[in-house]
Amino acid sequence: MSNSDSSNSKCKIIVDAMGGDFAPQNAVLGAVQAFNENKDFELFLIGKEKEILKVLSENNLSFAKENIIHTEEVIEMGETPTAAIKSKPNSSIVAGVKLVKEKKADAFVSAGNTGAVMAAATLIMGRIPGVGRPTMGASMPNISGICTVFDVGASVDSKARHLLEYAIMGSIYTREIFGIEKPSVGILSVGEEETKGSEVSLAALEMIKKTNLNFKGNVEGGDILKGTVNVVICDGFTGNILLKFGEGVLTLLKFKFKEYAEKGITNKLKIGLVKGAMKEIMKDFDYEEQGGVPLLGVNGICIIGHGRSTSKAISNMVLRAREMYAKSLIKKFESSIGQYSHL
Amino acid sequence: MSNSDSSNSKCKIIVDAMGGDFAPQNAVLGAVQAFNENKDFELFLIGKEKEILKVLSENNLSFAKENIIHTEEVIEMGETPTAAIKSKPNSSIVAGVKLVKEKKADAFVSAGNTGAVMAAATLIMGRIPGVGRPTMGASMPNISGICTVFDVGASVDSKARHLLEYAIMGSIYTREIFGIEKPSVGILSVGEEETKGSEVSLAALEMIKKTNLNFKGNVEGGDILKGTVNVVICDGFTGNILLKFGEGVLTLLKFKFKEYAEKGITNKLKIGLVKGAMKEIMKDFDYEEQGGVPLLGVNGICIIGHGRSTSKAISNMVLRAREMYAKSLIKKFESSIGQYSHL
Repeated sequence: MSNSDSSNSKCKIIVDAMGGDFAPQNAVLGAVQAFNENKDFELFLIGKEKEILKVLSENNLSFAKENIIHTEEVIEMGETPTAAIKSKPNSSIVAGVKLVKEKKADAFVSAGNTGAVMAAATLIMGRIPGVGRPTMGASMPNISGICTVFDVGASVDSKARHLLEYAIMGSIYTREIFGIEKPSVGILSVGEEETKGSEVSLAALEMIKKTNLNFKGNVEGGDILKGTVNVVICDGFTGNILLKFGEGVLTLLKFKFKEYAEKGITNKLKIGLVKGAMKEIMKDFDYEEQGGVPLLGVNGICIIGHGRSTSKAISNMVLRAREMYAKSLIKKFESSIGQYSHL
Repeated sequence: MSNSDSSNSKCKIIVDAMGGDFAPQNAVLGAVQAFNENKDFELFLIGKEKEILKVLSENNLSFAKENIIHTEEVIEMGETPTAAIKSKPNSSIVAGVKLVKEKKADAFVSAGNTGAVMAAATLIMGRIPGVGRPTMGASMPNISGICTVFDVGASVDSKARHLLEYAIMGSIYTREIFGIEKPSVGILSVGEEETKGSEVSLAALEMIKKTNLNFKGNVEGGDILKGTVNVVICDGFTGNILLKFGEGVLTLLKFKFKEYAEKGITNKLKIGLVKGAMKEIMKDFDYEEQGGVPLLGVNGICIIGHGRSTSKAISNMVLRAREMYAKSLIKKFESSIGQYSHL
C-alpha cells in the first residue's frame, strides 16, 4: 500500500470487514460487488484475514490477497467507543482509520460500532481546519425528493458555530452528491417565525443568515418529510432522537399491519394482496437499504453504516465514498469553512 | 356563574367556541355532545354569542343561554401569542382562562392558537407552587399501549429541574388517566447507557434517580413507539420537533399510497381493497381524532387541541378535563412537587 496522491491516483477505499451484525459476510460481499461492478478504484478489506478469505471462497469470489489487511482485534457493537479504540489499536476500525490519516488510503467505510468509528475518525484523522465538530447526515425521503438532516448524532450540545458548520458542509454535500445546484437549508425549530427556537438555534439562525447559503430560516419537524428544504440543520441530540423515532414509526406500522392480518382470514387475504404494494411504498423509508451516513468534518472520507447493513447497503456506502473522493469534497469543505471563519 | 368549590360542586368546564380551524362549528358541536351524553358537569361556551347560537340552532341543539359567555374579540391562529393576549383582553381565550383563575370555573378547553392558550394559562392562571415551567404531554400509540411524551412544546431550553417536574406530573397524569399503577418513566437520550446524553438530560437523569418514581433511565427515540416505558421526558424543543415529525410521517405515507394508486388501474384496485384496513390501522396515529393535550403545571385544568380538531376531538377534550377534575389532579401535582422541593 503506497502513499495516496489524492488528485491523480485511483481512490483507495478501506472497508471494515468486521463491521456490522452480519460481518464479515455482508461487508465482504457488498464491498467486492461494488468493486467488481466498477473497478475504477482500489478496494482494501480490513479484518481477520482467515474469515475474509472464507467468505470470499464460499462465494467463489476472486480478490487480490495483497489487498486484504489483516487485523487481529475486533471492536464489538456494544463496546464503549473511547475505551475500545484505546484498548484495541490493532482493530479493523482503529487500524483502518489510521491508514486514511497516513494518506495510505482515502476513505474508510464501516457498519461497525458507530460511536467507535466516529471517535476513531475524529481523534485519529483529525478535523478539517476550521471545523469545531464533525457531523453525520441522514437522508430521508420526502414528497419531492430527499432531505438530509445534519447532525443525527455525531455530537450533542452543539454550539451555534457548530450548526453553522453543519449548514456549510451539508449544503456542499447535497449539491455535489444529489446534484442540487443551490440546496435550500433550514434550521430545525418549534415554529417558522424567526423569534421561535432555543437559545442555540436562534443564535445559529442569525449566523447562517450572514452566509450566502440558500437559507430559508426556521423549519418544523414536519418539514423534513414535506420537502420544504433540501438540508435540515439541528443539534445531534435532537437529530439522533428523530432518526430513531422515524425508524420506530416504521417498525410500529409493520406490527400494526401484522396485527390486523392476524384478526381473521379476510384481513389476512387483504394484507396479502397488497404486500407488494406495501413493500414498494416502504422501500424509500428503509434505512437498511439506503446505505450509510457520511461523517463530515473529519480530515478524510468516512462512511458509517447501520449495524444491520445488507450487502447492498455496504456496496452503496463504498460507491458513495468513491463519489465523495471524485468530487474532492474534503477540499471543498475546507475552502468553504475557511470563507466563514469570521462568523 | 358562581364561585366553584372544587371538591363538592359539579365540575365547570369552559369551552372556547372560537378556537380551531373549524370554529365555532366543531367546538360547539363537540362540547354540547360531551355534555348531552353525560350531564354530570356544567358546560359553558365562550365566544361570539350570535355565532354560537347560530350553530346551535342550525343543528337543532338546545343549550342553556345563560351558559353562553359572550366575548367580542377573537385571537386568530396566526397571531403572536404574548402580543395577542395583551391586546385582546376580551377574547374567548383570555376571558375564559381568567374565569378559571377566579375559581368561577375549573377547566378551560380550546383548539385555538396553542401559543396564546399556553401563554394565557401560564400568565393568568399562574403555576402550581413549586412548578418552574408548565408542560404539554402528547400521547402516542405503541405496540403495547400508549406512551405519553412530556414536553412537546410548552417550553424550550428546559433546565434539569424542569425535566424532573415533567417526570413527576407526567407520572401522576399517566397513573390517574390511563390507570397504570406505577408508570415507568424514561428520559429521552441518544443511547441507553447512563453516560449518554446532553448536559441537561444527564443532570436530570441524576435528579430523577433520587425520586421514588418508577424510573428506567435513558431511552431512545425508537422506544417511544416500542412501548418500553409509559412516560417519556424531554425538552419541549425536541418533543415538539418529534411530534410534528411523527405527523409528517403519516402525511408522507398517505401521499405515497396515493402516488402508488395513481400508477395504474391494478394498483388503484389494490389500494381500494385495503382502504378500510388502512383506515383502521392509521386511526391510532391520527392526532386529529385523539383529542387535545393537557397543559400540566398551571394552576387549573387546561386542555389544548389541534387547530384541525374534529367535534369528536373537542368532545374527548371536554371529557378529559372532567376526568382530571374528578381525580383532583391539580392537588396531586402540588403535593407531589412539594415532596421533591429539595432536589
